[in-house]
Amino acid sequence: MSFKVTILGSSGAMPAYGRHPTAQLIEIQNRHFMVDCGEGAQMQLMRLDVSYHRINHIFISHLHGDHYLGLMGLIFTMHLQRRVNDLHIYSHRGLDEIITTQLRYSRSAPSFKIIFHRLEKDERKIIFEDEALTVETIPLLHKIRCSGFLFREKPKPRRIDKTRLPEGLLIQQIASLKRGDDILDEAGSILYKNADLTLSPRKSRSYAYCSDTAFREAIAEQIQGIDLLYHEATFANDEELKARDTLHSTAAHAATIAKMANVSRLLLGHFSARYKDLTPILEEAKPIFPNVYLALEGEEFTIQE
Amino acid sequence: MSFKVTILGSSGAMPAYGRHPTAQLIEIQNRHFMVDCGEGAQMQLMRLDVSYHRINHIFISHLHGDHYLGLMGLIFTMHLQRRVNDLHIYSHRGLDEIITTQLRYSRSAPSFKIIFHRLEKDERKIIFEDEALTVETIPLLHKIRCSGFLFREKPKPRRIDKTRLPEGLLIQQIASLKRGDDILDEAGSILYKNADLTLSPRKSRSYAYCSDTAFREAIAEQIQGIDLLYHEATFANDEELKARDTLHSTAAHAATIAKMANVSRLLLGHFSARYKDLTPILEEAKPIFPNVYLALEGEEFTIQE
Repeated sequence: MSFKVTILGSSGAMPAYGRHPTAQLIEIQNRHFMVDCGEGAQMQLMRLDVSYHRINHIFISHLHGDHYLGLMGLIFTMHLQRRVNDLHIYSHRGLDEIITTQLRYSRSAPSFKIIFHRLEKDERKIIFEDEALTVETIPLLHKIRCSGFLFREKPKPRRIDKTRLPEGLLIQQIASLKRGDDILDEAGSILYKNADLTLSPRKSRSYAYCSDTAFREAIAEQIQGIDLLYHEATFANDEELKARDTLHSTAAHAATIAKMANVSRLLLGHFSARYKDLTPILEEAKPIFPNVYLALEGEEFTIQE
Repeated sequence: MSFKVTILGSSGAMPAYGRHPTAQLIEIQNRHFMVDCGEGAQMQLMRLDVSYHRINHIFISHLHGDHYLGLMGLIFTMHLQRRVNDLHIYSHRGLDEIITTQLRYSRSAPSFKIIFHRLEKDERKIIFEDEALTVETIPLLHKIRCSGFLFREKPKPRRIDKTRLPEGLLIQQIASLKRGDDILDEAGSILYKNADLTLSPRKSRSYAYCSDTAFREAIAEQIQGIDLLYHEATFANDEELKARDTLHSTAAHAATIAKMANVSRLLLGHFSARYKDLTPILEEAKPIFPNVYLALEGEEFTIQE
């Protein structure tokens, strides 16, 4: 089953050197989510030949332009293409007003329903849940209200060991094996022990998206042991003072969070326009956390089961 | 002296095949204007290595997203780069609210002053004027309030014929020759006849931008004899009914306006996403108005003096 992060853009406040503002597509078990939606995101989706019709939930971290200015264009395009499904948008206060104001002046009544979900400041909360996964907010430290998002698969069923499965079991009995139960006979005695017929479940995968934020230890505490962390790294160490002043992170900050949280893999992004060459960003993180990658646009990062 | 139109984007309502939404840069005698500002316009300006710091006046035809959604990002970038000069924005009602709402939620106070100028429905009016040119609104016929823009150089001074200029004339006398006056002696008699020392002025050039609009004869009447006309041609004839329904034009409509207006050159743009190949649009216009071009992005159209 899929678990994939596609980078649509990872430029910082300004686009630069052909790099687009922040936007990501997250695919988990055939569900499609979007995280942030910077200017040009719809063009990036088209360029990468990614279907945006299947996106039903868009999570916006905060209301700095480089994180949401592509949303209105995407909504207009979905409308022109006669989208039917509801679109859920998760954001701090204000985005509903920004969008409805623009719809009003364009005299557009979208072909689909937009449902706004308001995020609250400094709150860790599950804001999306279905049978396969949850999405939880991560409080970030930035100039305005800002949240990251933690995508986590729910515990998965035990796997049937087909090589050892006796013939003639009922569907209900198979289901109870997957839940971890033994199979009993009519008298209530154990007919088959669960451990004899099943294998341990596949692991539940997890991804955390943290942009924009100053260095904040509580992030590491919340995301302990996850598989993949995207953490902003707007600057390298040469601009640490600038990072502190603007409540952004350096590559070393991001790597330190990854190390403290004991994550498996780290992606760096939200690169300042002052860096044409991103090598210094990557090289600065490596000694602290070696399994680190640049979130370059067009790249896909997959978590295996 | 420069008179140049640079196409930043000419896609219709949706971006398609790498074509960006509508935006143009107009350079006249070293003044830089922007006309419409679709999503991605700032990236297009960067890609084409066009300085956007010198743009002081932005004219927005109407509040459909494909004509203004790039403006907020451009404003944020100008702010981040510490722009100082006032920025004048000309638009129908609503854009001031759309922009100030977004500035409020991003907690941004731009480093420069934004001055909004409201356009009125169905009005022909000079909305910008300086010593070299005027910009006049062109009422268009669309689903919401929509204006085109007519850029017109003012009459130019007569040119001094240096081969015939006597020595020893004062600066004031040269200036009066340029204005068309004769040079008199102290008694008030003609010392030099203007016609003997000057050549006729260079021609005053003109450009009309008309997007989006249904076929509207009054446009042709207003723009008689101009040098360059950009007229939307969203559809070819195969979609004439669709054009009528959405208050857009076909290539034949645009060419007919160009012919009726007796313009020198026609640019077609605002192409529907249904046309990957734009040849049919161009070929349809040619029999009606042969001096016609596609407004492809990155292309520059210059009017010689």
